[in-house]
Amino acid sequence: MYCPDKKGIIASVTNFINQKNGNIVYIDQHVDRVQKAFFMRVVVEGNFDKKLFDSFINSFNQELGLKYDLKCNFYLEEKKPRMGVFVSKYDHCLYDILSQQRSGKLICEIPFIISNHNDLVKIASQFDIPFYHIPVDKENKNEAEERQLKILEDHKIDFIVLARYMQIISSKLLNKYHSNIINIHHSFLPAFPGAKPYHSAFNRGVKIIGATSHYVTEELDGGPIIEQDIVRVSHVNEVDDFILKGQDLERIVLLRSLKLHCQRKIMVYNNKTIVFN
Amino acid sequence: MYCPDKKGIIASVTNFINQKNGNIVYIDQHVDRVQKAFFMRVVVEGNFDKKLFDSFINSFNQELGLKYDLKCNFYLEEKKPRMGVFVSKYDHCLYDILSQQRSGKLICEIPFIISNHNDLVKIASQFDIPFYHIPVDKENKNEAEERQLKILEDHKIDFIVLARYMQIISSKLLNKYHSNIINIHHSFLPAFPGAKPYHSAFNRGVKIIGATSHYVTEELDGGPIIEQDIVRVSHVNEVDDFILKGQDLERIVLLRSLKLHCQRKIMVYNNKTIVFN
Amino acid sequence: MYCPDKKGIIASVTNFINQKNGNIVYIDQHVDRVQKAFFMRVVVEGNFDKKLFDSFINSFNQELGLKYDLKCNFYLEEKKPRMGVFVSKYDHCLYDILSQQRSGKLICEIPFIISNHNDLVKIASQFDIPFYHIPVDKENKNEAEERQLKILEDHKIDFIVLARYMQIISSKLLNKYHSNIINIHHSFLPAFPGAKPYHSAFNRGVKIIGATSHYVTEELDGGPIIEQDIVRVSHVNEVDDFILKGQDLERIVLLRSLKLHCQRKIMVYNNKTIVFN
Amino acid sequence: MYCPDKKGIIASVTNFINQKNGNIVYIDQHVDRVQKAFFMRVVVEGNFDKKLFDSFINSFNQELGLKYDLKCNFYLEEKKPRMGVFVSKYDHCLYDILSQQRSGKLICEIPFIISNHNDLVKIASQFDIPFYHIPVDKENKNEAEERQLKILEDHKIDFIVLARYMQIISSKLLNKYHSNIINIHHSFLPAFPGAKPYHSAFNRGVKIIGATSHYVTEELDGGPIIEQDIVRVSHVNEVDDFILKGQDLERIVLLRSLKLHCQRKIMVYNNKTIVFN
Repeated sequence: MYCPDKKGIIASVTNFINQKNGNIVYIDQHVDRVQKAFFMRVVVEGNFDKKLFDSFINSFNQELGLKYDLKCNFYLEEKKPRMGVFVSKYDHCLYDILSQQRSGKLICEIPFIISNHNDLVKIASQFDIPFYHIPVDKENKNEAEERQLKILEDHKIDFIVLARYMQIISSKLLNKYHSNIINIHHSFLPAFPGAKPYHSAFNRGVKIIGATSHYVTEELDGGPIIEQDIVRVSHVNEVDDFILKGQDLERIVLLRSLKLHCQRKIMVYNNKTIVFN
Repeated sequence: MYCPDKKGIIASVTNFINQKNGNIVYIDQHVDRVQKAFFMRVVVEGNFDKKLFDSFINSFNQELGLKYDLKCNFYLEEKKPRMGVFVSKYDHCLYDILSQQRSGKLICEIPFIISNHNDLVKIASQFDIPFYHIPVDKENKNEAEERQLKILEDHKIDFIVLARYMQIISSKLLNKYHSNIINIHHSFLPAFPGAKPYHSAFNRGVKIIGATSHYVTEELDGGPIIEQDIVRVSHVNEVDDFILKGQDLERIVLLRSLKLHCQRKIMVYNNKTIVFN
Repeated sequence: MYCPDKKGIIASVTNFINQKNGNIVYIDQHVDRVQKAFFMRVVVEGNFDKKLFDSFINSFNQELGLKYDLKCNFYLEEKKPRMGVFVSKYDHCLYDILSQQRSGKLICEIPFIISNHNDLVKIASQFDIPFYHIPVDKENKNEAEERQLKILEDHKIDFIVLARYMQIISSKLLNKYHSNIINIHHSFLPAFPGAKPYHSAFNRGVKIIGATSHYVTEELDGGPIIEQDIVRVSHVNEVDDFILKGQDLERIVLLRSLKLHCQRKIMVYNNKTIVFN
Repeated sequence: MYCPDKKGIIASVTNFINQKNGNIVYIDQHVDRVQKAFFMRVVVEGNFDKKLFDSFINSFNQELGLKYDLKCNFYLEEKKPRMGVFVSKYDHCLYDILSQQRSGKLICEIPFIISNHNDLVKIASQFDIPFYHIPVDKENKNEAEERQLKILEDHKIDFIVLARYMQIISSKLLNKYHSNIINIHHSFLPAFPGAKPYHSAFNRGVKIIGATSHYVTEELDGGPIIEQDIVRVSHVNEVDDFILKGQDLERIVLLRSLKLHCQRKIMVYNNKTIVFN
């Protein structure tokens, strides 16, 4: 939840939860002093069936929502988010997503994989997941997006991961899945946005390369950053070494973001993220 | 402050502060579920003179302290902690402490430097700080400690830093400055406690070396860890390289700890630290 | 190759290769001044069929081997090393090994997987790799090792990876695959050798945890270290967080080691590794 | 030294040194396959007085220089490089430079400090180093540069460090001290070149900030990168935290570069550096 920063919010919210017999097992808050905004994440234990949960939300919004101008999302932990996976030809992120989900470390449903190429169909079948091959080119762009959108809606997708999907996402999808499309970019943003960042990094002679996961917005590689990490390179490394080292980063950084998103630990505000750990 | 974990603590404390016209500018809490203990750090803005401050403490302890079995420390931000500096022959940590304090980045008073050697007296005079040379050997150990203790008391020292001080601290000092003596050990503890850790690390063929700052306890290099950091080494590096690389770590890790301690961001519990950032 | 350090070795070796029409595409050397030992890794391009290769080795050994007391290994790049995989119940390292090998990033043959449990048979079948379930307990230890050894020999295995295999390796295997058994240990060695290192790290209150890959020797977790890496933890993290964060390290560190080993970039000497990059 | 990559260079050079009774204690080489260029760094032990040293250089150039089109620099280890220090108002890099030089970890002469402000004169006097206050503004720019140049020449300066010197360096100085002016920039280049990078990083919402040392060229913050390092930030950190964390990076990264430069371990080629370790 977030709201304009005012005195007494924490006391009000924790009092409210105590009265409803909820047990706070985690609470964290953040004040953005520049924006004068207050952010809070609370995990509550209690005996909530669907009905109680809805009535909790209702009274919360009535008693506190209006008073503090609170914007709040409520999640039941047992309801796993449903993730749509978009890929092109690279397999390293896809392998990591599927194996971590199978191991129970990435807790979400994966109803399908969409790709503009056919290369990774074998991995989809290895993991028994439906694979939709939707080629995208200049002529069929509109129609391809309609097909994507239909699949996303049919499967009641909550959020999308672009696991090295090499296509620009249409504003139709962006609007519908706002703050719910996660991309992995293979550079230390804002350095080297756009195409071929490893080549640019090599040509610039950097000593460290990086990877960045972010929510997708209209601006290319300009959305709210979720997580970044880096690895050292040296004059010994050629472009291919940059790529190999970088791909290890990409999958690590992407997976960390997906786990945070699935655990509802990320809030987006003013093109930045607040990541509660 | 910390106390046994119970329902309603956060609400009670934040309510109390609101009633006293305090404005909470920072609040963070931690629950140790294994120990069932609750920890909280709160920064309050308000118009507190000495008298109001004392009365605030009094009513806090009466209204909440007993109810929740709270143990709480109160600090006025404008009162800088007073730090006693112990060194032997190495200068890298001392230089960093003095220059960072002079730059206003390490906010504390440094009334003196104590050393069992005379090597660093020049640096003390460079920075205009009294330097007490108190040699320590088997015969005079007791007497030396008495001299140290006298100086510490005369200068109303709040805490001590062992900036590569190569002597065991007596239990007399340990008791008096419990959880207030910070040491920097030149290894990634608990690996390589005791003497010559860089040599041991070299002989073991590790690929990463570290430095660890901790509060001193009776057990050698066994006290609560405050901060650690590491740097890569390789087969190319000889023992002297380990030492040079490590000394850069030592000063960085030590300074981070001193800053955290001076900002009262560290709590000690069960031989561990809770570090609020 | 390595030998006692003497004047003129580099000139002699590079001269020799030039005479045989080999083109040196990579050369790196290391002098251990304490041990007075010289190490070199050379990659040569040239038109070598099997016969030429053997004759090159022969004349190298005759002309230089004796003169400099050189110990040298020769590899043809096109001959992929054959790796035997041992696992127990954890799947994260196994998934990484198999997917990276399939992507062509870990260049080796994987003829089979051996496990003392049956849990991971599904992953083996997902990747179409023979899976041998060889339970190990006190009674059948000897017999189990015989079965393992037979499989290793039948498949002409060059080296073994213990991908979180939770059993002590017998000296019979150790002798046969000396410096060719790679283990991943889930701590920053030499801290926390043996069982349950994440629990020990949690209890000690460290601020950084690590993972270490090493060649297996008779001494438990005491063999030559190949690679280490670390990740930060804090008071917020419980043991389960240590485990989750650590498992990401384990697979990264293990895979880096396997790649280095498969590329023949590691030399072992005096319980240490020289890793040419 | 560097030259176009040809067969036999290593053998020729090492043979030559052996014949002159030099003992190679370190040798490292690098081949840039894209540029087809060969780079080598050799450290030779031997009984070289000034005369022998000159004759060694002469015959090296005659016998090998022409043959291989070698460009080579020769240094006597005992001759310390002379460094000119430029600062403005920030003291953290200056403190580090002076204290590390005094500790014998940064091996160079520091004949003076030049500053466009008077703030740091006290530190200069603390360390007994001449301090030239040369204000720079639009009107006196030319004259100020002449004064700087005169001081540099009078003191026979080998290279210059800009230790957070907040002025553009004139092309006159750039030409004279080409590849010999080291700057520290307080961002992870090429992200955030120019002014106020910490503010830009904060506004972009990055999760990691960095510092970069580089040789100064005509292009602002575009010269060959020597060293970079990073530190994590989070939504908790405000701009001031970015600055404090970053300043620790700046001094570490700058000092590493100065040490490498003083040890003649850096070669510059095609706007990149080769850093031999």
